[in-house]
Amino acid sequence: MIRIAVIGQSGSIPEEVERMAEEAGAEVARRGAVLLTGGGSGVMEHASKGAKEAGGLVIGILAGDRTDVANDYLDVPITTGLGFDFRSLILVHSCDALIMIRGGNGTLGELSAAYMNCKPTVAIETSGGWAEKVKQTAFEGCYLDERRTVEIHYAHSGKLAVDRAFELLASKWNEERNTGVTGD
Amino acid sequence: MIRIAVIGQSGSIPEEVERMAEEAGAEVARRGAVLLTGGGSGVMEHASKGAKEAGGLVIGILAGDRTDVANDYLDVPITTGLGFDFRSLILVHSCDALIMIRGGNGTLGELSAAYMNCKPTVAIETSGGWAEKVKQTAFEGCYLDERRTVEIHYAHSGKLAVDRAFELLASKWNEERNTGVTGD
Amino acid sequence: MIRIAVIGQSGSIPEEVERMAEEAGAEVARRGAVLLTGGGSGVMEHASKGAKEAGGLVIGILAGDRTDVANDYLDVPITTGLGFDFRSLILVHSCDALIMIRGGNGTLGELSAAYMNCKPTVAIETSGGWAEKVKQTAFEGCYLDERRTVEIHYAHSGKLAVDRAFELLASKWNEERNTGVTGD
Amino acid sequence: MIRIAVIGQSGSIPEEVERMAEEAGAEVARRGAVLLTGGGSGVMEHASKGAKEAGGLVIGILAGDRTDVANDYLDVPITTGLGFDFRSLILVHSCDALIMIRGGNGTLGELSAAYMNCKPTVAIETSGGWAEKVKQTAFEGCYLDERRTVEIHYAHSGKLAVDRAFELLASKWNEERNTGVTGD
Repeated sequence: MIRIAVIGQSGSIPEEVERMAEEAGAEVARRGAVLLTGGGSGVMEHASKGAKEAGGLVIGILAGDRTDVANDYLDVPITTGLGFDFRSLILVHSCDALIMIRGGNGTLGELSAAYMNCKPTVAIETSGGWAEKVKQTAFEGCYLDERRTVEIHYAHSGKLAVDRAFELLASKWNEERNTGVTGD
Repeated sequence: MIRIAVIGQSGSIPEEVERMAEEAGAEVARRGAVLLTGGGSGVMEHASKGAKEAGGLVIGILAGDRTDVANDYLDVPITTGLGFDFRSLILVHSCDALIMIRGGNGTLGELSAAYMNCKPTVAIETSGGWAEKVKQTAFEGCYLDERRTVEIHYAHSGKLAVDRAFELLASKWNEERNTGVTGD
Repeated sequence: MIRIAVIGQSGSIPEEVERMAEEAGAEVARRGAVLLTGGGSGVMEHASKGAKEAGGLVIGILAGDRTDVANDYLDVPITTGLGFDFRSLILVHSCDALIMIRGGNGTLGELSAAYMNCKPTVAIETSGGWAEKVKQTAFEGCYLDERRTVEIHYAHSGKLAVDRAFELLASKWNEERNTGVTGD
Repeated sequence: MIRIAVIGQSGSIPEEVERMAEEAGAEVARRGAVLLTGGGSGVMEHASKGAKEAGGLVIGILAGDRTDVANDYLDVPITTGLGFDFRSLILVHSCDALIMIRGGNGTLGELSAAYMNCKPTVAIETSGGWAEKVKQTAFEGCYLDERRTVEIHYAHSGKLAVDRAFELLASKWNEERNTGVTGD
C-alpha cells in the first residue's frame, strides 16, 4: 500500500488552505493510498478529514503518548512518546512521498528530513508559509543544498500535488526496477 | 480504535505457537481492534495472518526503512529507520495493551518497556520462551521489580489472552474515568 | 558546564571557513565550555580541532554505532545508532546554545530543531551556505515562522559568534531566575 | 577513549551497593576510561561519585531536557529529551562495555538492549536485584535467549567487574583485529 504524508501548518489556517488540504487527503484516499500525518490540527486535520470522507485510511504519528490531542479523523494513532521533532522524523521515514501545504518551522524541519531521506516531495506553492517561501530560497528553486539530492516539486492544488507525487513515485520505482537498485 | 500489540519470537516457531499467534490476531480483529506488531516473522507473522483472515487491520512497526523485509499481512508498514531496539519502544508506546507469545531477548526488552510504560500485558505462559520464563522469575510471579508498577497477567490460549487484555483495558479506563486521571 | 554545539557543513569547506570553525571551537574551550558537534568532517572537524588545541573537551554525537568514522579530535563519541537525522536532534537537545557555520540541508534541519526547542543560535553569516541564506529568507531576517519563538542571531567571526552565544545564555538565565521559570 | 557504562538501581540503595558502585566508577577512572551512566540517583550517582573522586570524566545520558534532575557528579549531561526508555538505548549504544549493579526493571531493559547490541556486560551478582536474578534465570546462567549472542559475565566487586570488562574488551578487539571484522 502506498503511503502519502501530508505535512503543513498546524493551528488556524485560511479557508482556502483548508480546502487544499481536504482535496489532497481525498485524492490520496481515492487512489487507494494510506494518508499519514502528524495527527494534529490545521493542515493535518483537514487532510485527514478529506481522506476519511473519501473512504480512506488515516494514520497519525503523534508526538506524545496521549490520543486525546489527536484530531477526529484518525483510524490509528501511533503514539510515539518522542516529542514533536522526533516524531516528525518517524513520519518522514514512514511515507513514500510527501505533500507540503503552507507550514511554519515544524514543516520546514520535515521538508529538510524528507530531502535528507530522498523522499519525493510536492509543495503547494500557493498555500503560503514555507511551501511558498522554499521556492524563492532553494538552490535553483528546488534543492536544499548543492548536493541536489532530490528535487522539490511544486503544484497549485491538492489534487495536482497528489497526481504529481504519484508520477514521481512511478518513475522512481521504474528506475529502481531497471537498475536493480532499491531503497525500498 | 483499540490498539493491541502482539509481541513474541521471530523466526521459526513450533506449530502450536503459530496457532496461538493466529488465534490471538484473529480475536483482536473480531473485536474490531487494530493489531500492531513488529512486522517481522514468527509470532508477528502468524498474528498478522490471523488478523487479516478475520478481516482486521494490521500495522507493522519496522526497524528499518525497507518494506520488503516485512511479512505479507501488513496493511501499513511504519518504517521507523531506527533499528530493532528503538522501534520496539515505538511499538510499546503505540499500543493500549500487549499479548506476549514465547519470545527471546527482543521480546524480553519489549516486556520490560511495556512494564515501564504501565501497559497491560498478557503472556501466554504455555508458549515457551520468556512468556513462560518470566512467571518463574518475576517478583510474586507478576512484577518486574519491587515497585510493582503494573501486573503481568497470564493466559493459556490466544483467545483467552485477548479476552483478558480487553478486561484489563476496560477496568483501567473505568478507573481513570472515576478518578478523573487519565494517561490516555 | 555550559555546552555549546557547533553545527555546519560537512565534507570539504573553504579555508576561511575552516578558520572560522577553529576559532569558534577555540573560544568555546577558552571559556571553559564543552564543545558538542556531530563528530564528522568539515565544520565539525575544524571546530573540534580548535577546541582540542585550546585544551577543551569535545563530544561528538554520531549517527551510527562505529567510532572510526569520527574525526580525530573527539574526547568522547556518543554513538547513538540512530542515523543522521535523529542524532541531529540529540545534538540540539543536548546543547545550551548553537553556533552555525555555512551548512547544507543537514544544518538547516538542525537550525529548525534548535528553533523548535528555543535554543539560542548564532549564525556566522559570512560563512556561506544556510548560515548566510537564512538571513535573506527568515521572517524579519531572524525568525523561522510567524510564531517568532526565538530569534536567530548573526555574527561575523567564530570568536564573535561564541561571545554572542554566551551573552544570549546569560540574559536567558537571568530572565529565568527573575521569573522563576526555568527550562533547564 | 574507552567508554564504560554503569547501569543499575536508581533511588535508595543499600550502603554496600553504594560502595560497589563507587568502586566500579573509581576503577573506570583509574584506567583512564570515561564513565557513562543515566545521570540519575542510586547506582548511577555513586558510580559517578567514585569516578569523579578518582579524577575521571563522567557523562550522563539523561531522559529529559533538564539538567537539574541530574546527580552532582556529571561533567557533561547529554539531555536527550527522549524519555527514560529511549535514553537507555542511547546509553547502551554509546558504551563499549557495561557493569550492572543491582537494578529493577529499567536496568533489565538496559541489559536486554546490551545483549541485543552484543555489548560485553558484567553483572555484580552479589548486589541483588536483576544483577543477581538474571543468573538464576538466564539460559545456562549467561544467555538471554537460545541464540546465545553474547555471554553475560559475573563478578563479586566493583573493581573485579571493571577488570573483567577490560579483559572482555581486549579479547573482543583482538579477535576483531585477527578476523578483520570490526563492529567498532
